[in-house]
Amino acid sequence: MFIHKKEPLQPVEVKSPDPAFAQKLLEQFGGATGELTASLQYFVQSFHMEDPAIKDMLQDIATEEMGHLEMVGMLIEQHTKRASANIQDAAYKSTLFSLRGKGPHFLNSEGDAWTADYINEGGNPARDLRANIAAEAGALQTYESLLAYSPDEGTTRTLRHLGTREVAHTQMFMTALQSMHKLDDAIFGDLKPDDTVNVYYNLSTSLDGSSKRGPWNSEPAFKFVQDPAQQKKKKGSIG
Amino acid sequence: MFIHKKEPLQPVEVKSPDPAFAQKLLEQFGGATGELTASLQYFVQSFHMEDPAIKDMLQDIATEEMGHLEMVGMLIEQHTKRASANIQDAAYKSTLFSLRGKGPHFLNSEGDAWTADYINEGGNPARDLRANIAAEAGALQTYESLLAYSPDEGTTRTLRHLGTREVAHTQMFMTALQSMHKLDDAIFGDLKPDDTVNVYYNLSTSLDGSSKRGPWNSEPAFKFVQDPAQQKKKKGSIG
Amino acid sequence: MFIHKKEPLQPVEVKSPDPAFAQKLLEQFGGATGELTASLQYFVQSFHMEDPAIKDMLQDIATEEMGHLEMVGMLIEQHTKRASANIQDAAYKSTLFSLRGKGPHFLNSEGDAWTADYINEGGNPARDLRANIAAEAGALQTYESLLAYSPDEGTTRTLRHLGTREVAHTQMFMTALQSMHKLDDAIFGDLKPDDTVNVYYNLSTSLDGSSKRGPWNSEPAFKFVQDPAQQKKKKGSIG
Amino acid sequence: MFIHKKEPLQPVEVKSPDPAFAQKLLEQFGGATGELTASLQYFVQSFHMEDPAIKDMLQDIATEEMGHLEMVGMLIEQHTKRASANIQDAAYKSTLFSLRGKGPHFLNSEGDAWTADYINEGGNPARDLRANIAAEAGALQTYESLLAYSPDEGTTRTLRHLGTREVAHTQMFMTALQSMHKLDDAIFGDLKPDDTVNVYYNLSTSLDGSSKRGPWNSEPAFKFVQDPAQQKKKKGSIG
Amino acid sequence: MFIHKKEPLQPVEVKSPDPAFAQKLLEQFGGATGELTASLQYFVQSFHMEDPAIKDMLQDIATEEMGHLEMVGMLIEQHTKRASANIQDAAYKSTLFSLRGKGPHFLNSEGDAWTADYINEGGNPARDLRANIAAEAGALQTYESLLAYSPDEGTTRTLRHLGTREVAHTQMFMTALQSMHKLDDAIFGDLKPDDTVNVYYNLSTSLDGSSKRGPWNSEPAFKFVQDPAQQKKKKGSIG
Amino acid sequence: MFIHKKEPLQPVEVKSPDPAFAQKLLEQFGGATGELTASLQYFVQSFHMEDPAIKDMLQDIATEEMGHLEMVGMLIEQHTKRASANIQDAAYKSTLFSLRGKGPHFLNSEGDAWTADYINEGGNPARDLRANIAAEAGALQTYESLLAYSPDEGTTRTLRHLGTREVAHTQMFMTALQSMHKLDDAIFGDLKPDDTVNVYYNLSTSLDGSSKRGPWNSEPAFKFVQDPAQQKKKKGSIG
Repeated sequence: MFIHKKEPLQPVEVKSPDPAFAQKLLEQFGGATGELTASLQYFVQSFHMEDPAIKDMLQDIATEEMGHLEMVGMLIEQHTKRASANIQDAAYKSTLFSLRGKGPHFLNSEGDAWTADYINEGGNPARDLRANIAAEAGALQTYESLLAYSPDEGTTRTLRHLGTREVAHTQMFMTALQSMHKLDDAIFGDLKPDDTVNVYYNLSTSLDGSSKRGPWNSEPAFKFVQDPAQQKKKKGSIG
Repeated sequence: MFIHKKEPLQPVEVKSPDPAFAQKLLEQFGGATGELTASLQYFVQSFHMEDPAIKDMLQDIATEEMGHLEMVGMLIEQHTKRASANIQDAAYKSTLFSLRGKGPHFLNSEGDAWTADYINEGGNPARDLRANIAAEAGALQTYESLLAYSPDEGTTRTLRHLGTREVAHTQMFMTALQSMHKLDDAIFGDLKPDDTVNVYYNLSTSLDGSSKRGPWNSEPAFKFVQDPAQQKKKKGSIG
Repeated sequence: MFIHKKEPLQPVEVKSPDPAFAQKLLEQFGGATGELTASLQYFVQSFHMEDPAIKDMLQDIATEEMGHLEMVGMLIEQHTKRASANIQDAAYKSTLFSLRGKGPHFLNSEGDAWTADYINEGGNPARDLRANIAAEAGALQTYESLLAYSPDEGTTRTLRHLGTREVAHTQMFMTALQSMHKLDDAIFGDLKPDDTVNVYYNLSTSLDGSSKRGPWNSEPAFKFVQDPAQQKKKKGSIG
Repeated sequence: MFIHKKEPLQPVEVKSPDPAFAQKLLEQFGGATGELTASLQYFVQSFHMEDPAIKDMLQDIATEEMGHLEMVGMLIEQHTKRASANIQDAAYKSTLFSLRGKGPHFLNSEGDAWTADYINEGGNPARDLRANIAAEAGALQTYESLLAYSPDEGTTRTLRHLGTREVAHTQMFMTALQSMHKLDDAIFGDLKPDDTVNVYYNLSTSLDGSSKRGPWNSEPAFKFVQDPAQQKKKKGSIG
Repeated sequence: MFIHKKEPLQPVEVKSPDPAFAQKLLEQFGGATGELTASLQYFVQSFHMEDPAIKDMLQDIATEEMGHLEMVGMLIEQHTKRASANIQDAAYKSTLFSLRGKGPHFLNSEGDAWTADYINEGGNPARDLRANIAAEAGALQTYESLLAYSPDEGTTRTLRHLGTREVAHTQMFMTALQSMHKLDDAIFGDLKPDDTVNVYYNLSTSLDGSSKRGPWNSEPAFKFVQDPAQQKKKKGSIG
Repeated sequence: MFIHKKEPLQPVEVKSPDPAFAQKLLEQFGGATGELTASLQYFVQSFHMEDPAIKDMLQDIATEEMGHLEMVGMLIEQHTKRASANIQDAAYKSTLFSLRGKGPHFLNSEGDAWTADYINEGGNPARDLRANIAAEAGALQTYESLLAYSPDEGTTRTLRHLGTREVAHTQMFMTALQSMHKLDDAIFGDLKPDDTVNVYYNLSTSLDGSSKRGPWNSEPAFKFVQDPAQQKKKKGSIG
């Protein structure tokens, strides 16, 4: 069960209300990289996860993200409700708040309704933790973009805290994944790979025939192959 | 520019056509974890990526995934078109092929149209590579689920190959991320974290007050805190 | 901020696991009339609401609905995970759990991802409370439909409790709306109605020219008019 | 069957064409609270409704709303097509009409395509009428928001009429619901409520422990309970 | 304005109610190729169309399609409501009517909500009429698929009529397009084509190098070119 | 299988970068009328098409459209990345690139994610080719709209080429459709039309009773009928 306390996880105090910035903030309330996505993704994963300690971590972080959702909502509320009449009048004409009302909505900064299509989960612990590291990376990038436009110190402090916590969560998920030895080992589950598992296919070719190389397509880890049909013929059947 | 060759990356040969299984296969043609998602995600990221070698890797793999999309499409085509009249008649009544026509469609196994909301990208190389590792993990898990229901050896061989390549791509993305030192280091970009970056909040509590612990919420890496408000008071302002 | 306690609001105990029924239960986890819709609708409204007492009510009920979401998730978890191998095997072939994994997902019973398009809110207290009464009515109707297919007593007890609470919430919203005198008075806000406010237009006509009547299209409350163009001509300009 | 007459229900005459305002008007053409939602919701409900007199009311109002959809479309047409070249040039650059063409589209003011996810219906007469009262409330609020930005008297007169009719429809639906004694009585259908039907759970708590009260969480109608687990223990099993 | 008459355009009489078939019928009520798509597409185009005679045609057909929507709704209503208790019980378990209620809904046969993304329109008369011919072709194909599963003669007669009218509308749209000389002439609007307008690029190549030919990639109408880069070099700059 | 060559089909060179125009360009990258829609529509149709020569044409054009998608992506990349700091700063504040990152995304100009609901296909060759002619018409109209706002000659040259190719593809599809005698003959498939196939219903009526006429509702091709019920009575049963 959940309990709500009428105090945010960290104080939220906007000094220079800016409804246009509030519309950008919607990206983290009702957008793909926002707090709702994170909270619901970890919450739903917690039902699938068998390991009780990782399940507990998912529930801890899901609950914290609900609190973050509330903090973003408070930012939006203050940036829309506290603006002076002049600012409001100008800003509302060009923002979705003119028709949808002041305060937060489950929309992104482009006015699109949140959808569970943003969520990535499926029960395998390695898959779910990788999905979470990706989700946190998206959230962090959006907070960095928002910080570049932040109109006042209070907003900056809150956004900086929220970004910090994404870093913290990422490190927790990485640590948990490492504890399963799945941070740097690709495979999981029952799949028996065929003999192409170390092959790098060079299907996009430069005009001069050269190819950029890095550790991801170099010996000894990877065998560089121009043409899968060609390799297949040499090898005979895969398997 | 793209060139198409009228031969799949690997042979696709179905022996026991099963339209009901074909509907499940749609998950990897027009579903969230499918080949279209992977191909378009890496393709669109290649425009953002400044490092030419990683850009080249994204284009190589995006192009390979288009070929995988074609292979999944061929599986679906054969599982629907080659079925005997009896099997078709029975199966079509209970599958979406009865109204949408035989062969592949950009729908998932539940009949939902593919949407770019499945794509995770945004330009930062670390974020994009993490998103790709997550995408591959989802694809791998779905291939494993499909393999458990595979009706014939030809289908199994193709699915096993496609799963193998997801493993290979994951290893490539992990290697590339490691080359940036971002496989096990959470932070990227300009964020200056506040002093909560190593704190673990215990917001979901067991009835007996105990808490499951693991390396992700233990000293020295993480400081375990029950109550964010309490910690904040001790510390004074965050910063 | 939110706190999670590892105990459901009411006990959830499934005796006869049925994955096919679990798919129906998704309607109340990730469907239009489900607990996520209710919880998020009331939560987001609480930011807009100026009256502190009604705001508090919205927060109380939003938090309870999160707990209900957890209970529905537990039902789905038990109906999928606890089924015997035989039942699982049969059921998984025909349910979305075969590919998406066991346990709950933010999908409805037809496999469609939850969307915030289901939410109805906009800041005006009368509008929001009316939206909530409608949301609860949808939830109640779905619980009644589910109860008709409930496979065991434990499931029935949980569904009956969840339905009961929708009735309780409805009565609370009705009482709050009545306290504003908006339960039976249509108008709110600044609109100055024109002179058609009591007119009933008979735009759908029976073949014999007769029209069904009730208090909603009868004198003295409503003036019955066949043809708006005709009425307009008699009246002259509206206003 | 439907018949169309080439005259709107009320005259529509725009004097000061404003394409930017036309984009806002899309909210009532192809948006959640718009005329299409209302018309289709009542139309589809009319198939489910057994009471012939209420069925007739739904058909009358659904047909009127189609005419309202036409009137909103005419407003948008005139606000885009009749603007002078200068105004058009400036406005089109910042509106969706530059790419989608002049006149109405089934999009909301943020450019999102209309979806039947906005519709709330399910066959039970009380549920459907409550859904309709909520739909009308949303429409009314949006018309009020639009009126605040209306650029000319003709537009204002039309919007005022459309808002007036939402009030009229609301009163009709309230009257019909009252005729079933379901305007102020929450329960309908077969549900046998358990003993929590009059309980108010105080799950969101103020820091000082106090709680805002109103008739919706006060004796005698409601029993105020802090903790559902606690209440359950006292009562024994629910039921 | 619209008027509704309580008689369908053609009689609708189901003899062998089949709720499973009713779910398939939803494809033409709330699906991509259904009557709602057609009706709303032509209706919204009528606002853009300047030619009064073509505008009138669009309004005539849009209005007829609303009547067809009603007829499909009546089919679904009868196939769900009139079924015997036994048939209903069996069928409802496996159809969406068990949770969504009997009768039509704005969903397709896979349970997805109708969306205006299905609509194709934009103001240019040639573009809109081509979109309509395509829409009718989709509708016709779905009716043909449904006819193959039709469970009784009454259903067959209605579906045959609806399919017939799609043919009739197609012929009307073709005739109108021909009257603009745009049925067989591709170009419209202000575009000044460059010198690739008659070139056919052979970008998908057979393994033996051969290419299938038809009038669409043959002299004199089309110039067959293997490689766009190669052609460009010969020609110099395009223009 | 697909091969990518690191050279666009035609050179893409932007001189006056304009991020606001880049947002409009998204319409052809991730919008309904864009290159992704075209490419995927023809690609998926190629699996259904039995005629090998038409199948080959679909593969040729699908592959070309992928190259066009790349060209539009390059336009967007250059219009966002190459802008001077001042222009970027101003433009990013009002465009979605501020939060989503520079370069292309699978969104339309209003920020909506691409969806396969835009695709029209179903296996019947006549239906699919008609759908393709409609798709090309939409693409052409959008390119014409974009050309009206094109900020430099390089952009104009690229857009003009892309528009030209839509004309070329249209002519190819028309020629193929004509080769099946389905360009001007509405019917296809197994439908046996009833006796209303040449009837024109006049369901939208002018106030003065007159009706606009054209070849599409005139003798001898079409029989003009006011009222379907009336005609039905004269004829007796249809069939």
